[in-house]
Amino acid sequence: MNIKEYMNDLGVKARKAGREISRAESGKKNLALLKIAEVIERSTAILIAENAKDLETGKSNGLDAAMLDRLALSPKSINAMVEGLKQVAALPDPVGEITDLSYRPSGIQVGQMRVPLGVIGIIYESRPNVTVDAAALCLKSGNACILRGGSESIHSNQAIASCISKGLSEAGLPIEAVQIVATADRAAVGELITMNQHVDVIVPRGGKSLIERISKDATIPVIKHLDGICHVYIDDNADLDKAVTIAVNAKTHRYGVCNAMETLLVAESIAGLVLPLLAEQYLEKGVELRGCPKTCSLIPACIRATEEDWQTEYLAPILSIKIVNGLDEAIEHINHYGSLHTDAIVTEDYTKARRFLREVDSSSVMVNASTRFADGFEYGLGAEIGISTDKLHARGPVGLKGLTSLKYIVLGDGHIRQ
Amino acid sequence: MNIKEYMNDLGVKARKAGREISRAESGKKNLALLKIAEVIERSTAILIAENAKDLETGKSNGLDAAMLDRLALSPKSINAMVEGLKQVAALPDPVGEITDLSYRPSGIQVGQMRVPLGVIGIIYESRPNVTVDAAALCLKSGNACILRGGSESIHSNQAIASCISKGLSEAGLPIEAVQIVATADRAAVGELITMNQHVDVIVPRGGKSLIERISKDATIPVIKHLDGICHVYIDDNADLDKAVTIAVNAKTHRYGVCNAMETLLVAESIAGLVLPLLAEQYLEKGVELRGCPKTCSLIPACIRATEEDWQTEYLAPILSIKIVNGLDEAIEHINHYGSLHTDAIVTEDYTKARRFLREVDSSSVMVNASTRFADGFEYGLGAEIGISTDKLHARGPVGLKGLTSLKYIVLGDGHIRQ
Repeated sequence: MNIKEYMNDLGVKARKAGREISRAESGKKNLALLKIAEVIERSTAILIAENAKDLETGKSNGLDAAMLDRLALSPKSINAMVEGLKQVAALPDPVGEITDLSYRPSGIQVGQMRVPLGVIGIIYESRPNVTVDAAALCLKSGNACILRGGSESIHSNQAIASCISKGLSEAGLPIEAVQIVATADRAAVGELITMNQHVDVIVPRGGKSLIERISKDATIPVIKHLDGICHVYIDDNADLDKAVTIAVNAKTHRYGVCNAMETLLVAESIAGLVLPLLAEQYLEKGVELRGCPKTCSLIPACIRATEEDWQTEYLAPILSIKIVNGLDEAIEHINHYGSLHTDAIVTEDYTKARRFLREVDSSSVMVNASTRFADGFEYGLGAEIGISTDKLHARGPVGLKGLTSLKYIVLGDGHIRQ
Repeated sequence: MNIKEYMNDLGVKARKAGREISRAESGKKNLALLKIAEVIERSTAILIAENAKDLETGKSNGLDAAMLDRLALSPKSINAMVEGLKQVAALPDPVGEITDLSYRPSGIQVGQMRVPLGVIGIIYESRPNVTVDAAALCLKSGNACILRGGSESIHSNQAIASCISKGLSEAGLPIEAVQIVATADRAAVGELITMNQHVDVIVPRGGKSLIERISKDATIPVIKHLDGICHVYIDDNADLDKAVTIAVNAKTHRYGVCNAMETLLVAESIAGLVLPLLAEQYLEKGVELRGCPKTCSLIPACIRATEEDWQTEYLAPILSIKIVNGLDEAIEHINHYGSLHTDAIVTEDYTKARRFLREVDSSSVMVNASTRFADGFEYGLGAEIGISTDKLHARGPVGLKGLTSLKYIVLGDGHIRQ
């Protein structure tokens, strides 16, 4: 079987399993999630042994320490998978929920029912835990999925997939509801993202270049974000303590994450007060500061920012800082240089908070809170399959609801159109 | 200016106007809609004169009677535009609505705000009234739009566009919020559907070949439906009167519309009762019947259906009829041959109604009601920009909400991530 036939075969099976899983009762889906958790728990030794093969290959292929770290499974990370499965099982089932059912003047009742999307294709890099997390969210939301992990984690992923199959089978659900692409051939990705008849949406997880490539080549809709160039704007009317706390947390809580602040905007009238306080903390934590000329004149250790800095997601202990006239310039800067991910204002001014919320066109807009909160768990979604900065369908952290859509239902009693 | 520069210029202006219109107060948007209605009303003579030029060109270019009919404006159709504008003005404004705002354990409040998509590109054929309808829906939902009508209606569209500009300007809103592509050059469409930096979504309205071509070439998301192969399934437990009334209405109320029934499925046990009654009415109305062998044995005037018939949207007085074993075969037929548009069951059986609603994967699923109800007005959306049979974003009739999406808002009081 060549790669095209192989992928098509996965697609046909996924579509069939997707129809079954879309009708499955919540109790059965939850049972499957808990059975998968059980199987994974008792397979810890096997998973670690299979993972060791990947780690060895990875080392001999010269993967760097960060990559190897993301690749590694441990009893602790396996336990986190098990807990994750239990958490997803405990979430409410979004499928079949009927909303806004009301009578129309014609006498028919019209409402909307939440339904699965169908088949989700997920393409990801090294982290084997994505295999479990993604499968759990797709299963709970009534979707079948086809998972394509990185070739560097192929043994780990196959071992996890075998646990998932056992769990599905013990719960009496079709094992083709979760399928792993069992080949390292890169052509498989090309097929997956263009099988429109079998796959309804693609979720790529990984580095920007992977996501860019997939978005460019996919003929199937993609749920994604490319950049997280997040801003915090400290307004004239900010509370100084809150401003410092939030701006430090947004930058330094974790550096390599998409919801970390990359650019700090400060209103001119408060810059002289707040920037020296912030600079002290940033420099103490080893954050490199790159600022506009005015910023540099207030912070001696600051180097000059270039045009490129305002467009860069550092994912590192580097921060760009710009002093602006006020709210209008801040909003303009964010809407121009931002990536529609997450942007926050620090202010005590009611009117400016209200304007910022309405006028900043990002998927998460915050007042007096750290950008680090942009996360499925923090938002109460229970888990997330990814974050979307697109405008259609789901925006921001995408949880179970983002893997569903609403169809119309109409109830009548012999009603006809006049 | 070449066509690429011209379209890019429209795009830049639309993006700018889109930002303004996204922040505009409801009152101002409604005022603009009413002002446009006023200007159109007092410009009736001019509109009819400009439309006459298009009709003349159309006739000399050999447009058929149906095309000329769609192209023609009359005092009555102009009045319908005016009424349409007033109706959209009276609808609630979806923009800025905040839902599900609740406190999370961390202390932050998380909710969602409904926001415009940005810039909508609309591509349509002959009917000049689409210019007004589409502009009204985009304006009300806080979006800028770029409208590309057919070259055959270019004078009519430009005259209408000039009324829209006057109305916007009288209400103090940017006239670039609604722009018409003022060239008949087909290359303009190619530019419009690939200007990802300036346009957020494309809505094509017209024949299937137009929509197919646009969906294939667009790099911007498209809200669309291709086919309306709608089914009515008459179940064993159907009420005979309701079955006949619905099946006749669904087919014969209007033939050329996407929510007309194209295939009738009948449970074997009731076929002998219901089909002769239906055949009489269909034949009286001149509907050609094409059936499976069993159907043909019950209806002498019925000709044999081919495999192609089950896949065809006739948009004409032709109906294909298939006798099925029962609910399972009906659902299987619909999910296989259907177009995810609108499908209905006629039954008095609670369990089968419940299963049909859940298991038929179409954008509108109905019980004991005519498929002809699948319509934005009938559903209470006030108006529709189109119907979507896609799975992401909006499904079924797309109204004001379908031209918006939800961003997350987070309110804190100095909260940081622990």
